Amino acid sequence: MLTYDLTGTKDSLYKQIYQNIREDVRSGKLSAHEKMPSKRALAQNLNVSIVTVEHAYDQLVSEGYLYSRARRGYFVSDIGDLERRKPPKPVSRDIRIPEEAPGLLFDFSSNRTEREHFPFSVWARLMREVISLREQDLLVKAPCSGVDELRQAITDHLASFRGINVDPAQVIVGAGTEYLYSLLVKLIGTDSIYCIENPGYRKLMKIYDSNGAPCVYAGLDEQGIRIDQLRSSGASIAHISPTHHFPTGITMPAARRYELLAWAYESQDRYIIEDDYDSEFRLSGKPIPALASMDAGDRVIYMNTFSKSLTSTIRISYMVLPENLANLFYKKLSFYSCTVSTFEQYTLAAFISQGYFEKHINRMRRYYRKKREKILEVIREVFDGKDYRILEKDSGLHMILEFNTNFSDRDLKAKLEEKQIRIATVSDYYMGEAPEETHQFLLNYSNIDIESFPYAMKAIRELL
Amino acid sequence: MLTYDLTGTKDSLYKQIYQNIREDVRSGKLSAHEKMPSKRALAQNLNVSIVTVEHAYDQLVSEGYLYSRARRGYFVSDIGDLERRKPPKPVSRDIRIPEEAPGLLFDFSSNRTEREHFPFSVWARLMREVISLREQDLLVKAPCSGVDELRQAITDHLASFRGINVDPAQVIVGAGTEYLYSLLVKLIGTDSIYCIENPGYRKLMKIYDSNGAPCVYAGLDEQGIRIDQLRSSGASIAHISPTHHFPTGITMPAARRYELLAWAYESQDRYIIEDDYDSEFRLSGKPIPALASMDAGDRVIYMNTFSKSLTSTIRISYMVLPENLANLFYKKLSFYSCTVSTFEQYTLAAFISQGYFEKHINRMRRYYRKKREKILEVIREVFDGKDYRILEKDSGLHMILEFNTNFSDRDLKAKLEEKQIRIATVSDYYMGEAPEETHQFLLNYSNIDIESFPYAMKAIRELL
Repeated sequence: MLTYDLTGTKDSLYKQIYQNIREDVRSGKLSAHEKMPSKRALAQNLNVSIVTVEHAYDQLVSEGYLYSRARRGYFVSDIGDLERRKPPKPVSRDIRIPEEAPGLLFDFSSNRTEREHFPFSVWARLMREVISLREQDLLVKAPCSGVDELRQAITDHLASFRGINVDPAQVIVGAGTEYLYSLLVKLIGTDSIYCIENPGYRKLMKIYDSNGAPCVYAGLDEQGIRIDQLRSSGASIAHISPTHHFPTGITMPAARRYELLAWAYESQDRYIIEDDYDSEFRLSGKPIPALASMDAGDRVIYMNTFSKSLTSTIRISYMVLPENLANLFYKKLSFYSCTVSTFEQYTLAAFISQGYFEKHINRMRRYYRKKREKILEVIREVFDGKDYRILEKDSGLHMILEFNTNFSDRDLKAKLEEKQIRIATVSDYYMGEAPEETHQFLLNYSNIDIESFPYAMKAIRELL
Repeated sequence: MLTYDLTGTKDSLYKQIYQNIREDVRSGKLSAHEKMPSKRALAQNLNVSIVTVEHAYDQLVSEGYLYSRARRGYFVSDIGDLERRKPPKPVSRDIRIPEEAPGLLFDFSSNRTEREHFPFSVWARLMREVISLREQDLLVKAPCSGVDELRQAITDHLASFRGINVDPAQVIVGAGTEYLYSLLVKLIGTDSIYCIENPGYRKLMKIYDSNGAPCVYAGLDEQGIRIDQLRSSGASIAHISPTHHFPTGITMPAARRYELLAWAYESQDRYIIEDDYDSEFRLSGKPIPALASMDAGDRVIYMNTFSKSLTSTIRISYMVLPENLANLFYKKLSFYSCTVSTFEQYTLAAFISQGYFEKHINRMRRYYRKKREKILEVIREVFDGKDYRILEKDSGLHMILEFNTNFSDRDLKAKLEEKQIRIATVSDYYMGEAPEETHQFLLNYSNIDIESFPYAMKAIRELL
């Protein structure tokens, strides 16, 4: 008769009996098809209630360690000797989440926006309102493209501020542009070749690559992506940022825009992905109309994100699909659930439609305009008007500084790191071979402490 | 001299001048390289201030419709005749978001949980607390795998309730399991073949397909997936639900689990994806330990979601990667941002670590246990113990009813639809050829109104 010591642990009697028997089956001490004692007999032997033994037996049957036969009782299952086979290697669990590069005093290479500027109290109030007043809506599953109210708010915003007139059904909401790029590859397919700008946002190549989509690049001239290189790349999808190219800051002029649209109209399978990631932060003049607003042929896929204009910790982006792609999306990919929770979709819808988004953007624009002026002033003073040139300063939250120096880009960067200053060069953003040293440095000023900025500039000046 | 009527619209003078000139450049009325009037001359002619004309000219230069030459003034850009080229087809924008199938009185085919049970007031309170007290944390970007607190809370939960002991660094948080499947395909690659269960959750095949991953299926016997078919499929990844297979309800017994693990240990590239989607709702006995808890060889990828156990409108799921895959993930895919907003990650972390998740699950289990008893009672009464059999009723929120009927599955379904009753058959969940008519129907009772349930059963009984 099975006998176990049930006094040792704090576990319930049922659990101890279950674990002891399971161990005996696993180890082979109880062999396959052996008859188990009856519930009554085991209960008597262990001095527990029959119900306790019954619970343990039931659980062991559920998990497949015992089986029962009507009127004959319980038997040991044949679990083979597989359990006793050695696993292929010992488990050590040596995993490290990669840490962020150590913080420096000045990081001009980071394009994060200052988080203090997120309109937290308004957002928190709207979220509380949504939670209090919209309980029923919040618990209804969103359409695959996002909740109606948010798509309507985005549609209205696009009409007022980007000159784009679309149907809310064309707007697809998702948890970040990276997610939407994946969705686009699923929609358009991996037979198409995707072309990005060179220099450009190198992460895009990694994203297309990890989605199994062939990705090539085309060079730029002073108007933006070169149509001849786009053609010779064999790509049918051009992924560009015409309002504000990163990192050169180029704003694509009308002529090149029409040329690019004409390229797209030549063939049914050509599309332009317009990544409008920081158009809200154009600091001079009126915003440049989106390429999508000039597209009478329905070939521009417009993309934008609130993770840039609000805070990177809110993961909401959207894309506007041309009619045929929108219909294909609903036909082919509507089984995918929308990746943004309804709580945040309703909060953002209220934030936009009640005018807070516009206010926020205007406030940020005024703030960054002042900051930019102050930064330009410091540079002028420190450099006394010599040995530098400022390029492309109007269109977003970074500018490019060209230094007159004998150091190579790499040496200058290394020497600045020693002084706790990190700076990226335009040549860092080239895929393939970078051109000869340009001495052009990115100055992201969105996240820079203006008070100590003169210190950084003086340190750079001394080095040159 | 250019003359425009500036009295017609409500737009600002600057905007009207800008729009009129832009239109003239586009239409060719102003021809390429034509010299524009000086700002002063045009201002006089239109009777506006020079600053107004300057604004309009600056904007037109930004957009590339004009260019300026120092000391010579402004000229019309050459935008070619591309703008006047016809787009390839007229835009009609006929897009319809697919509607949900019209609601019926009874939909036994839907497995949604009752949304009234979401612990809204606790969730709302925690969210308010997070918003009030955690402002700083909320605005710090989360690690690619999710915020530390949430991964720790999930790790603790898994140790207590699923017998799985892991390092929080192995836990990857994402916006829904569908998103995590895509991430897994990116991690493991599309050279591997993925095998799902047949019958099974057919959406999985669509998901693998849309991610470009080859997907095959293997049949089941009464213990779950057949190892012989898994072997002959050539797959190296087995995607299964051992705790509660959908739709058959099979709980994989220990013997098959060990057999499956042994299969995985045979080759370095084999993995098992354990989709534990409704293990929380096991209504009889103790929960079945997860397959991952038996895996000494680090080959099980464990997956679960809060969208099922809480509400489908909150998109938070997670997977637990074996050590080698976790390291590969951080090496290869850490450039992807976490897709869940920090607001909800912190709220969920508090919800779990303060014990509310456990309480919620226990409450739901009691509730569904009662509901299930009531449902079984109604079925017994209506059918008077005849012409039906109930299969697999213990393990989750659905059971399978086998009817004694001469109708084909298809005919019975059609006749029931006429009576506003939708029911799915097990044969609906087969890929490839379904077996002969089994007359087995799924009864999802998670979303069924118990008060009118007898009406539905009587209608079915009458039909048979």
